[in-house]
Amino acid sequence: MAKAASVLKREIFSQPQVLQRILRQERKRVEVVARRIAERDPKVVVIVGRGSADNAGIYSKYLFGALNKKLVALATPSLITRYGAKPDMSDALVVAISQSGASQDVAAVVETARAQGGLTLAITNTPGSPLAQAAEEVLLCHAGEERSVAATKTYTAQLLLVALLSAHLEGNKQRLASVERVPELVERALDIEPDVERVAERLRYLEHCAVVGRGFCYGTTFEIALKLKELTYIIAQPYSSADFRHGPMAIVAPGFCVLVLAPQGKVMDDVEELCAQLAERKAEVITVSDKASLLRSSTVGLALPRNVPEWLSPLTCVVPGQLLALHLAAVKGLPIDTPRGLSKVTVTR
Amino acid sequence: MAKAASVLKREIFSQPQVLQRILRQERKRVEVVARRIAERDPKVVVIVGRGSADNAGIYSKYLFGALNKKLVALATPSLITRYGAKPDMSDALVVAISQSGASQDVAAVVETARAQGGLTLAITNTPGSPLAQAAEEVLLCHAGEERSVAATKTYTAQLLLVALLSAHLEGNKQRLASVERVPELVERALDIEPDVERVAERLRYLEHCAVVGRGFCYGTTFEIALKLKELTYIIAQPYSSADFRHGPMAIVAPGFCVLVLAPQGKVMDDVEELCAQLAERKAEVITVSDKASLLRSSTVGLALPRNVPEWLSPLTCVVPGQLLALHLAAVKGLPIDTPRGLSKVTVTR
Repeated sequence: MAKAASVLKREIFSQPQVLQRILRQERKRVEVVARRIAERDPKVVVIVGRGSADNAGIYSKYLFGALNKKLVALATPSLITRYGAKPDMSDALVVAISQSGASQDVAAVVETARAQGGLTLAITNTPGSPLAQAAEEVLLCHAGEERSVAATKTYTAQLLLVALLSAHLEGNKQRLASVERVPELVERALDIEPDVERVAERLRYLEHCAVVGRGFCYGTTFEIALKLKELTYIIAQPYSSADFRHGPMAIVAPGFCVLVLAPQGKVMDDVEELCAQLAERKAEVITVSDKASLLRSSTVGLALPRNVPEWLSPLTCVVPGQLLALHLAAVKGLPIDTPRGLSKVTVTR
Repeated sequence: MAKAASVLKREIFSQPQVLQRILRQERKRVEVVARRIAERDPKVVVIVGRGSADNAGIYSKYLFGALNKKLVALATPSLITRYGAKPDMSDALVVAISQSGASQDVAAVVETARAQGGLTLAITNTPGSPLAQAAEEVLLCHAGEERSVAATKTYTAQLLLVALLSAHLEGNKQRLASVERVPELVERALDIEPDVERVAERLRYLEHCAVVGRGFCYGTTFEIALKLKELTYIIAQPYSSADFRHGPMAIVAPGFCVLVLAPQGKVMDDVEELCAQLAERKAEVITVSDKASLLRSSTVGLALPRNVPEWLSPLTCVVPGQLLALHLAAVKGLPIDTPRGLSKVTVTR
């Protein structure tokens, strides 16, 4: 590990404070936005984002789908920017997520929907950004400047804002009370760091792996795979446990490494069954879970805090993945805050 | 290459005949279904599938989005089967795609939508399958039994049915005339086989690669990556050229192999720009394109038939990928028709 803590490490460990700040400073706005949405009662929610924000979008898809019973579509910006198609979004809620708020194609979806009379919401860390100006409603991440190229604190900030919005929309008091616990839960998730540091040693020469999860944590598989790619250049590929059986299972040879996200919840049986199939094939299975027996039966188990409601588990589940990418990059002697070939803001059209 | 042609090779080369059969035998049904859809005029299209069928679903998303101006959502079956959510699909068209028609979770989405009064359509190779019985409307692939575990002829059959349906829905005569040319275009795409066989030699020890495309061919990147994984156990990962710049670009070291799908069309400039960035990083760039200058400037160029309308290019673009997976598996001495760890029908819940 480098002597001076990397910017990335400081940003990862600042997450509980950022999340607390959102609960203190943005809660009222979330309530107002939830009320506006409830008044319009859109049947369809369209989500748009790129990179980590797109992964937060996958979480939103499950959340609005499972708990707010909305039909949710992930937008394909190129349909608008490249093919000139303007799908009818006049009855839709468009949620655009972007740390920088700078991506032109994301803003183009918002502008199109707003011109049609659709309700538009930007979730961004950058007040005054083109995206924040394009959308009717804005929710801010309050994450401070994110200096590391790999997004961490703005990602969990986006998840929390979406979680808060979903709970307010449903008007579910129990869920609203659970959200209050998130900063402390993420704090506890960070306690796994020494274990992750040990695992990183073992994975020093890992070249490729799969990251598997399902349901609420499906988007988390994309985010952890992205962190591993950005920071460690490992070819990490995300899968749902259901899709993994439709073909990709063929790549599993003895020793093939699979990182499995398995917080307790409604998809646990499916994920556990996959773990057993992977063990039969002598894969190296690293589980991120709060279930003791599964942690014990894995090659390596990384324990999650217990008693986290399933719908909030992506906020704790991503933490061991962020730490693993950080420590693997350190073990490999790679530039943690400035990965090769990337810049902080990527503008796509 | 094995002496006796593999089942897979025969199935790949039977594609022009299968596609011709669809045009002859299923066209009337497609017209009827298009009329029913037009009567109901659904604002939202929900697509559901797993594995290769899910990749055909991504194509459908672009097609119905760009050319029929529909808002398209890819369904998340686990929301219904695992979380008991029933999003309102009463005004939607649900298109379920499955070779076998056996996946329970795909049928569950159709059953839910049909019970709500939504219009449901199954695209399957198996008349009388649970999925065909669950849906109100059925379109058949006419591909005959698919014996190879890796789907090829049923995949292009699904694409053609979707293309035909989209053209009928729009009532666009020029597009309908173009569809007639598809069997011959796929026949011409198959002529690339000797070139692909040579490339396969070069890639004998390839362990991982990226497959990049955008727009209509975005789903094709998933399908080619899946074929490579199923048949050659190469860790192949699909990306849109836009998403590739948001992080994954970091994994590109000199010699990193990227298969780029670049048929002429509205995303060509973006894909070409990415090719230039990859060349700067001394990546090994294999392009599948009908643009002579791009083919020449790549490490390896695989020529596509010219004058294919962009919206039909996924039908020709996938062919070099299928052939590459076939010949790489042969060069590696792997079991072509029965990849390890897979069975023909995968049932997910």
